[in-house]
Amino acid sequence: MTSFTLDPRLENDSVFICDWNLSHVRLHRNAAFPWLLLMPRRDGMRDIIDLSEPDQEEFLREIRFASQVMKKLYDPTKLNVANLGNIVSQLHVHVVARFDTDEAWPGPIWNSGVSKEYETDRLAATIQMLQQELKDFS
Amino acid sequence: MTSFTLDPRLENDSVFICDWNLSHVRLHRNAAFPWLLLMPRRDGMRDIIDLSEPDQEEFLREIRFASQVMKKLYDPTKLNVANLGNIVSQLHVHVVARFDTDEAWPGPIWNSGVSKEYETDRLAATIQMLQQELKDFS
Repeated sequence: MTSFTLDPRLENDSVFICDWNLSHVRLHRNAAFPWLLLMPRRDGMRDIIDLSEPDQEEFLREIRFASQVMKKLYDPTKLNVANLGNIVSQLHVHVVARFDTDEAWPGPIWNSGVSKEYETDRLAATIQMLQQELKDFS
Repeated sequence: MTSFTLDPRLENDSVFICDWNLSHVRLHRNAAFPWLLLMPRRDGMRDIIDLSEPDQEEFLREIRFASQVMKKLYDPTKLNVANLGNIVSQLHVHVVARFDTDEAWPGPIWNSGVSKEYETDRLAATIQMLQQELKDFS
């Protein structure tokens, strides 16, 4: 078992959805975009290429599944899948459903200044829906 | 042999480096960032999950190699690896070497307004260096 500590900024910005073989999966608290975060549960990783090759392949499989679920649930104009990590270096991949009607479109969501808080009920419903779709993947 | 047509905006913004098994590899003309573009040579693809599973695996292998070469050549603070495609929907992945000294840091490069033209000599030298490192991958 390798250890895993979540960066407190990632933790604050998001809520827990589920754990997979490799990834810790969270929903970003910014309600302006349907936005998942996938963090491989390995300490000290910054770039995807820091993972072992089997972990990279598992991570791709998990990103793919997250992408498919986001596509199915939200029917977005475009998925945005990205590893940036300029602010929080702990390896995390964004899987975001983008719409040509969203407030940051067609720009990137990061640094866009577009931010909205989930209403409590909507946050609970979103977590439940995502957990339902995501939690049994293995 | 499947067909492949490059979107004219991607073509205009970048210069040819090499072709791999799956990807067409180009250097972005914005000299503010060492910035590769990888386009799978398949028509009609928008999201990574539109590719067949073997193509997704090959694409990951190629993204990984591009990432390793960018890391080796530029020793960046962080790699940014992203599929956005909100403006040009043709599937393309950005592999960008970011520095805590670059003008857009720590924000994303897209929509940052940070843009610089390559001087002719520097562009030629960069193309040559990248081709040298990238072209023989198979």
